[in-house]
Amino acid sequence: MIIVMEKSSLDPQIEHIANQITELGLKAHVIRGTERTVIAAVGDERKIKVESFESFPGVAEVLPILAPYKMASREVRTDQTQIQVLNFKAGNGAVGVMGGPCSVESEEQIVSCARAVKASGATALRGGAYKPRTSPYAFQGMKEDGLKLLALARQETGLAVVTEVMSPEDVELVAKYADILQIGARNMQNYRLLEAAGRSGRAVLLKRGPSATIEEWLLAAEYILNEGNPDVMLCERGIRTFEAHTRFTLPLATVPYLHRKTHLPVIVDPSHGTGHSYLVTDMAAASVAVGADGLIVEMHPNPEKALSDGYQSLDFSQFDGMMKRCKVIADAMGKQFG
Amino acid sequence: MIIVMEKSSLDPQIEHIANQITELGLKAHVIRGTERTVIAAVGDERKIKVESFESFPGVAEVLPILAPYKMASREVRTDQTQIQVLNFKAGNGAVGVMGGPCSVESEEQIVSCARAVKASGATALRGGAYKPRTSPYAFQGMKEDGLKLLALARQETGLAVVTEVMSPEDVELVAKYADILQIGARNMQNYRLLEAAGRSGRAVLLKRGPSATIEEWLLAAEYILNEGNPDVMLCERGIRTFEAHTRFTLPLATVPYLHRKTHLPVIVDPSHGTGHSYLVTDMAAASVAVGADGLIVEMHPNPEKALSDGYQSLDFSQFDGMMKRCKVIADAMGKQFG
Amino acid sequence: MIIVMEKSSLDPQIEHIANQITELGLKAHVIRGTERTVIAAVGDERKIKVESFESFPGVAEVLPILAPYKMASREVRTDQTQIQVLNFKAGNGAVGVMGGPCSVESEEQIVSCARAVKASGATALRGGAYKPRTSPYAFQGMKEDGLKLLALARQETGLAVVTEVMSPEDVELVAKYADILQIGARNMQNYRLLEAAGRSGRAVLLKRGPSATIEEWLLAAEYILNEGNPDVMLCERGIRTFEAHTRFTLPLATVPYLHRKTHLPVIVDPSHGTGHSYLVTDMAAASVAVGADGLIVEMHPNPEKALSDGYQSLDFSQFDGMMKRCKVIADAMGKQFG
Amino acid sequence: MIIVMEKSSLDPQIEHIANQITELGLKAHVIRGTERTVIAAVGDERKIKVESFESFPGVAEVLPILAPYKMASREVRTDQTQIQVLNFKAGNGAVGVMGGPCSVESEEQIVSCARAVKASGATALRGGAYKPRTSPYAFQGMKEDGLKLLALARQETGLAVVTEVMSPEDVELVAKYADILQIGARNMQNYRLLEAAGRSGRAVLLKRGPSATIEEWLLAAEYILNEGNPDVMLCERGIRTFEAHTRFTLPLATVPYLHRKTHLPVIVDPSHGTGHSYLVTDMAAASVAVGADGLIVEMHPNPEKALSDGYQSLDFSQFDGMMKRCKVIADAMGKQFG
Repeated sequence: MIIVMEKSSLDPQIEHIANQITELGLKAHVIRGTERTVIAAVGDERKIKVESFESFPGVAEVLPILAPYKMASREVRTDQTQIQVLNFKAGNGAVGVMGGPCSVESEEQIVSCARAVKASGATALRGGAYKPRTSPYAFQGMKEDGLKLLALARQETGLAVVTEVMSPEDVELVAKYADILQIGARNMQNYRLLEAAGRSGRAVLLKRGPSATIEEWLLAAEYILNEGNPDVMLCERGIRTFEAHTRFTLPLATVPYLHRKTHLPVIVDPSHGTGHSYLVTDMAAASVAVGADGLIVEMHPNPEKALSDGYQSLDFSQFDGMMKRCKVIADAMGKQFG
Repeated sequence: MIIVMEKSSLDPQIEHIANQITELGLKAHVIRGTERTVIAAVGDERKIKVESFESFPGVAEVLPILAPYKMASREVRTDQTQIQVLNFKAGNGAVGVMGGPCSVESEEQIVSCARAVKASGATALRGGAYKPRTSPYAFQGMKEDGLKLLALARQETGLAVVTEVMSPEDVELVAKYADILQIGARNMQNYRLLEAAGRSGRAVLLKRGPSATIEEWLLAAEYILNEGNPDVMLCERGIRTFEAHTRFTLPLATVPYLHRKTHLPVIVDPSHGTGHSYLVTDMAAASVAVGADGLIVEMHPNPEKALSDGYQSLDFSQFDGMMKRCKVIADAMGKQFG
Repeated sequence: MIIVMEKSSLDPQIEHIANQITELGLKAHVIRGTERTVIAAVGDERKIKVESFESFPGVAEVLPILAPYKMASREVRTDQTQIQVLNFKAGNGAVGVMGGPCSVESEEQIVSCARAVKASGATALRGGAYKPRTSPYAFQGMKEDGLKLLALARQETGLAVVTEVMSPEDVELVAKYADILQIGARNMQNYRLLEAAGRSGRAVLLKRGPSATIEEWLLAAEYILNEGNPDVMLCERGIRTFEAHTRFTLPLATVPYLHRKTHLPVIVDPSHGTGHSYLVTDMAAASVAVGADGLIVEMHPNPEKALSDGYQSLDFSQFDGMMKRCKVIADAMGKQFG
Repeated sequence: MIIVMEKSSLDPQIEHIANQITELGLKAHVIRGTERTVIAAVGDERKIKVESFESFPGVAEVLPILAPYKMASREVRTDQTQIQVLNFKAGNGAVGVMGGPCSVESEEQIVSCARAVKASGATALRGGAYKPRTSPYAFQGMKEDGLKLLALARQETGLAVVTEVMSPEDVELVAKYADILQIGARNMQNYRLLEAAGRSGRAVLLKRGPSATIEEWLLAAEYILNEGNPDVMLCERGIRTFEAHTRFTLPLATVPYLHRKTHLPVIVDPSHGTGHSYLVTDMAAASVAVGADGLIVEMHPNPEKALSDGYQSLDFSQFDGMMKRCKVIADAMGKQFG
């Protein structure tokens, strides 16, 4: 932590802060410049409340030095984590693809999706049974019946199943049927849910909240890791910006940036990240090219009739085209794809 | 709903959409212009999935007409709701103030805060017992012990107690001690929690998520109203923007805008909305001037030593100054303040 | 400047940087912590390119310490600048109001506006003669004819005239007629124009670009101050965010924040800052309450018929109501208003 | 244009608007729904001021239907424009690459850059002679001397030269030396400059302003096209968002979105779009994969010593690696690259 003092700050103010730093178990270095005095606090600042120094008299600014997350950081683990669930692999040279409908709607729908997903070479099936819906008047999902259909589709195809869990009390039930638990963007900072997912024994796909900083996102991952669950995948699904021609803005630079900061695999969701089916394939290709460790893509037998998110879902043939286009790029990069 | 067709759209595409609209129970008006054809769907579009028309061939854009929320809207109730809890009143001419620490830390701390809040003329006490913390390594709150101390402070002062609830399974317990349940910004779209708060029998203070649109926020309120609980206050606490000199950007135009769209009272939180104690009083004054129905403000006997949010907390004397400055403005506007 | 090294950085990398800092005329302090090494560079870092250290091997992050602007800063001048032009005063206890139409349209229009502005107690007249328009097909202003009409309106009323200048080659002409030159939001970083305005001998109203940081904005002011012109007013007119119910988001916390950082007066534009006439009066009141040194507000004899910006213009009676409501607040704050 | 009326709107208000529409030469269709009345105005709404209807009594919202730009739109030209300057080609199957330093610093620097750019297979040389700098205290460029060095480098290598022009009065001089005029992000809405570039006889690279909407950007292009210059390239260089780990957020979905809306080629700038050299190559690859028609990339013989933007510049070997990685992707897409 670096504390920058106001130009007008007084010696007793500087001493007061230096003493406080020492009391907290860190070392204080006071550096008096021609323009400003700065105080460097040396030691593990994660143990203290860095921002609280802002309220000390004479302080202009407080600059943290250490990232506040630990277990997710590259400092703890320098190679990249690969997560494998059945045939699905993400990270460390593997690009895993999860395809499927927004919501599970019927046996016929989910099984036909699963077959198409598998036929196109992907290894995981997505499908929502519990649906967080912006409006209380919208379709809220098939709940446990949906979970059962997902399990059935896995039995038919061998695909790994990924599905969202919305509440800590549902974690046990969802974990019974699913291979990977998805924490949705709206719940990225639902800490009880993160803790429950951390204790579930299942891999977790943690979506970024649309206004979450990278640091907040990695701290959310830290809640899961901290419960002893190392199998966390980060999913970039777009942030909220002034740009209105896409539903969210998908900032792909997140992928190589995260690869420097964390050993966890990074998945991209071009469906929610754009909100328009006609942008999904191009952004999926860009995601692979930028180095993503996986994709999660919405598809549906008949997007016009989908009970949710039809406007951003690919049909089977578009999904297949997307897979082919991405595979060429992954191959050129020497990565395993599917 | 208005559907704008591509310039190159074909007659059978237009017919297909018109038929689909009719099938869904609305009336379709096809308007052929010199430049574009548009299709107006007349009827209650809330019953259908407006966006799904985006995936129909030939469609350029879909423009919803009706707000998707109902019970929160001005169309349902033209006068403004006033919420009263003990001596706290917000809305319809009353500006209610909630003051207190970020976290309950001890009996001495919370009772001294409550006394200072009351002495300055405010009518509600805030204080966190369950704390949603970005980092798993930060202080997570005193939990039920904190709730008990809040109840004790109420007994001493008669202030209404507002405190956050983070999980549906805690609603019953928190509702036992608190007068007003706060749903935090991170949980604005935690729908299970909204539903549980809707059934709690307590007034609810619903904070805006930092990237939530007004529409998403009112739909979150709708989840609570829809459970039969009419006592919902909306709390603007800042949105996430590129502006980095404040922790969030506090968009005060939200207040008069909401007053046009909803009958629910609008509270402003200048503490989280700025993130710096030296900006809080000015923004509190501006909030009253813009027409807010209430304020929620962090204060602490000794901000330097606060276990959380000290950098944005006022001390007792600053809180008192803030109250005085706001009262003058409220008086000039003919409003009850405190 | 503080340079934070990667955990894996090597001693020769640290030495290389320390040498480079010394070569540039600053002093390097190397602080070796348990977790990280940081290098503090002491001296006037404004003379060097701080960010360039980011490209040195082993560097994790570079944190500037000094604000890059000088003449605009509080460090140079601790009291607040008051700018006076005719009867218009802004800053240091005075809240000056500029009212008038978006565009000058005719003698009758501008003179009637000027009379209404004066009658309501304001001291400056705004009106555009050169109009920066998003579309090449929109009305581009009356140009020199408009300037003449503004001068005529000043003659009739004694109001100070503020009008926009769009290009360095127009500065001389506009300065002949106007008392205050407005640099619009789109031109905040048009450096040639800033320099020309700095040499014009006229006070300058510098609008914030909708995505400009506070630092970029103050550096733009610095271009003007640097030419020897001390009469610069900063005008907050809203930033671009995801919030779509207002045309821009008006972040009023900017006002007290700027008051800490700069001695220059801060004006607020609630017309462009909201984009809807029904929000203007409330936000004008909030601006005065938050401590603004002035307002610039669009008004028009008949907003329905305005050639530009009618949707955000007040009519004469609304303007008068706005003035009355703001005056009460300014009076309560002990400030001169008008 | 669709005008949505308030639920409480009155018949005379509806008639008043319908009459106004008719007066303006469009046809008004009044559609009375069960919930709302909407008025559709049929005809070329570009001729009228759509937003002005917002200030009419009884109006809830005004929804424009037609894009306000014409010559840039797909409706005018359905195939894609290809721009060719010397050996540089962008659009319609060609991906053109512009490489070079941020600023021209010396003959040796620019000629060595040009040779490296050519050796790596790119066809255009970038280099700034007039530099728009945020701070008045920063290096402002070599001006005409820089232009002469660029021309010399072209002579040596045959590369097309692209360089920024900042002011209308410089257009003639810059056009004398350069093949492509760059309009920088800060000047995207400097309309005088756009008009002058439109009359210059040179191809124009129009960078997106960091808070410009797509519509504003295409309208800026329209200013150039409207002067009779068809050779406009759009350059996405990142938008301003809350995301702070990159200098700007590079929204690659812009590329396929623009391809639907306009026939103009779309170039991506991964250097400014990320602000960190370690992110440039990955984002360049993603840009090609998403369908960009060109790249503009900063490189420097020795980024540590660059007079500007060293932190986001590649060295020669990194540039060469970037070219190789992108070529594989372009080849896979069947596009010409270089």
